[in-house]
Amino acid sequence: MGIRYEDFLDTAYEPKESDLVCSFYLEPADGISWNGAASRVASESSNGTWAELDVEGSVEDLSATACAIDEESGQVTVAYPDALFEPGSMPQILSCIAGNIMGMKAVDRIRLLDCKWPKKLVESFPGPQYGSAIRTEILDAGERPATATVPKPKVGLNTQQHATVGYEAWTGGIDLLKDDENLTDQSFNPFEDRLIESLAQRDAAEDETGEKKSYLLNVTASGNEMLERVDMAAEHGCEFVMVDVVTTGWGAVQQVRERCERHGLAIHAHRAMHAAFDRIPTHGVSMRVIAQIARLCGVDHIHTGTAGLGKLANEDTRGINEWLQSDCHGLTDVLPVASGGLHAGLMDQLLTELGTTIAVQAGGGIHGHPDGTHAGAVAFRRATDAAARGESVENAASDCPELARALEKWGTETPR
Amino acid sequence: MGIRYEDFLDTAYEPKESDLVCSFYLEPADGISWNGAASRVASESSNGTWAELDVEGSVEDLSATACAIDEESGQVTVAYPDALFEPGSMPQILSCIAGNIMGMKAVDRIRLLDCKWPKKLVESFPGPQYGSAIRTEILDAGERPATATVPKPKVGLNTQQHATVGYEAWTGGIDLLKDDENLTDQSFNPFEDRLIESLAQRDAAEDETGEKKSYLLNVTASGNEMLERVDMAAEHGCEFVMVDVVTTGWGAVQQVRERCERHGLAIHAHRAMHAAFDRIPTHGVSMRVIAQIARLCGVDHIHTGTAGLGKLANEDTRGINEWLQSDCHGLTDVLPVASGGLHAGLMDQLLTELGTTIAVQAGGGIHGHPDGTHAGAVAFRRATDAAARGESVENAASDCPELARALEKWGTETPR
Repeated sequence: MGIRYEDFLDTAYEPKESDLVCSFYLEPADGISWNGAASRVASESSNGTWAELDVEGSVEDLSATACAIDEESGQVTVAYPDALFEPGSMPQILSCIAGNIMGMKAVDRIRLLDCKWPKKLVESFPGPQYGSAIRTEILDAGERPATATVPKPKVGLNTQQHATVGYEAWTGGIDLLKDDENLTDQSFNPFEDRLIESLAQRDAAEDETGEKKSYLLNVTASGNEMLERVDMAAEHGCEFVMVDVVTTGWGAVQQVRERCERHGLAIHAHRAMHAAFDRIPTHGVSMRVIAQIARLCGVDHIHTGTAGLGKLANEDTRGINEWLQSDCHGLTDVLPVASGGLHAGLMDQLLTELGTTIAVQAGGGIHGHPDGTHAGAVAFRRATDAAARGESVENAASDCPELARALEKWGTETPR
Repeated sequence: MGIRYEDFLDTAYEPKESDLVCSFYLEPADGISWNGAASRVASESSNGTWAELDVEGSVEDLSATACAIDEESGQVTVAYPDALFEPGSMPQILSCIAGNIMGMKAVDRIRLLDCKWPKKLVESFPGPQYGSAIRTEILDAGERPATATVPKPKVGLNTQQHATVGYEAWTGGIDLLKDDENLTDQSFNPFEDRLIESLAQRDAAEDETGEKKSYLLNVTASGNEMLERVDMAAEHGCEFVMVDVVTTGWGAVQQVRERCERHGLAIHAHRAMHAAFDRIPTHGVSMRVIAQIARLCGVDHIHTGTAGLGKLANEDTRGINEWLQSDCHGLTDVLPVASGGLHAGLMDQLLTELGTTIAVQAGGGIHGHPDGTHAGAVAFRRATDAAARGESVENAASDCPELARALEKWGTETPR
């Protein structure tokens, strides 16, 4: 058998139900045609190489097919036979669809935009345990957004200061205390001490408010260590762990998901470093695909941005959130988290854009309140409740002095 | 205490020996000054937030300092106190220096270019077990480049076909059979069968040639599964495992490194997906930093490109390789691997550029030889030996018909 680049191009090909179908944006290199670029992408990401080969005997055909090319939009569709993939292995799938092709000279730019996942591949992954149901299964949030806060400064508070901030936030009306992504197990605030002290304050806040409260404990670490932290979290009574999914990577995320099943722990996914490869709109891997991967691997929450509000740049938050809540061969949904420069004054804009099936997180926008964390938490919760009911934040401020003070300080503007 | 962005800027600051010092390239957003952008990067990557805070009691100061700004080159230096970091946790370090800052609106582009690693942090990581010494400790390569090949087509050969290609390549003079990054455990070539059959052919090739031969077995998978594959590799007599470090992620890599210590197994690091975040020179994380991370985490080989030859785009291969072999607080070095569109005719250009302390890998450039894999292996090994001695490849072809045939087919040109 001979294999040549042209064998990977067939614009008459109709993807099968069982194919993994990927959309790419391409910019062919100088001197490479659209057909040449598209077929090289299909080749290198499946079973091709640059040299023509003659292979003895019959070989299973695992070639991908570049089956649609739209030169105007730069979009190319590639269909992959499912036998190319190891079921349930996200690292292996990424090595095909987002691997060497990202660096091919035949393209100046290449971005994996979107995937259509076939049933068999989806069913080889666990998916989330809870998804948006955590709002009622773990919290008392009902249909409103779950609210969360990260103590600030992000790092440097000692264990007691950290737990006290938690207590103030929880009793002010916040559902979830969240560790910062930079906070794991450092000498100024050791992991196990923080876990114990924070849960003690959580229990006190639950008693005081009569509402369920929970803690997003950052267990991110190297693989084995992370499993030990998961076990410790379960043993002390956490309902959640937080994992920084990009910096630790999908191999470790999949392993944590297995362990969390044993304990019934939900997973809050932070996404630090995603913007290293999803920010330039013409290259890399889109946040949409990262969110899809995270859902397959089984996280319950994932940060997907703030629809352009706040301090961080965002890809299509609304479209990603819709995908996370759409049907995907029966997978449980994921609760998207909006975070990064949010404060009470932005809540009605945010919920108008994203709806109420989200979690909303504010750090500086709570702890930077002129009257401190407790007042900041009251203001943020009141603004969230109001926005979820379609009431304007300004109106809600009329019977909530904490919210009035927050609006006085920050207005309804996005910070820079 | 109050924390403001300006507190993160001090161009008179001299980084301490104990600081982690990072160089970034920045493009400030419209309306943001250089000082504003640099201080926001230092803030968000350490302990700052967008809101001004008043914190009760004293807090450990973990602020980073933007200590040099060169507007002309766009380079900004940020020094981080070591107490900010969890020793030995690469995911935590990345969450600081390559995390949320990649997506900050205050910069249009940001790239982590280089790191200067302090002794204490370096010593919290294991580093490689063998590094370039694998050429004599595991192989018989002496001072010449180790040679490797991936069977092609990349995937689709059955187990027997794959092992036969291995035998042909090994007996033709190649040191290392390497699995493709797409090949893990699929039904057309299951993991354990491949391991057993390949090692049987390896043993036969060693007997026949009297040279040590080895197999870069791709164990990449989700965390727990990967450890089982590492154990299986050791049990059957492998000297190496191959890990796709970016697609599986650093959490799993660190765990594999621990397990490999127990077995004395070396780690060959593939880097599929690196170009998703290192290809655009003005954004993301440089391959130089990825190589540094890989060395700290303890891989023995890593792919660093082909100095512009071959089919894949490359960042400064030579500079990265020099770093991998330079002193870094006593860490063992790493043997860089050149791979991607190489063939015999490129060897003297490659070695002139990169020297001989490397491994060279060819797939299509061996199996695409007009007379098949064995002849392709003879040609590639002969070209490598010649180039390592400073003999021209053309000259070496005069007494090696296989090499003459290879040069006739591919010349000394880079494929497209």
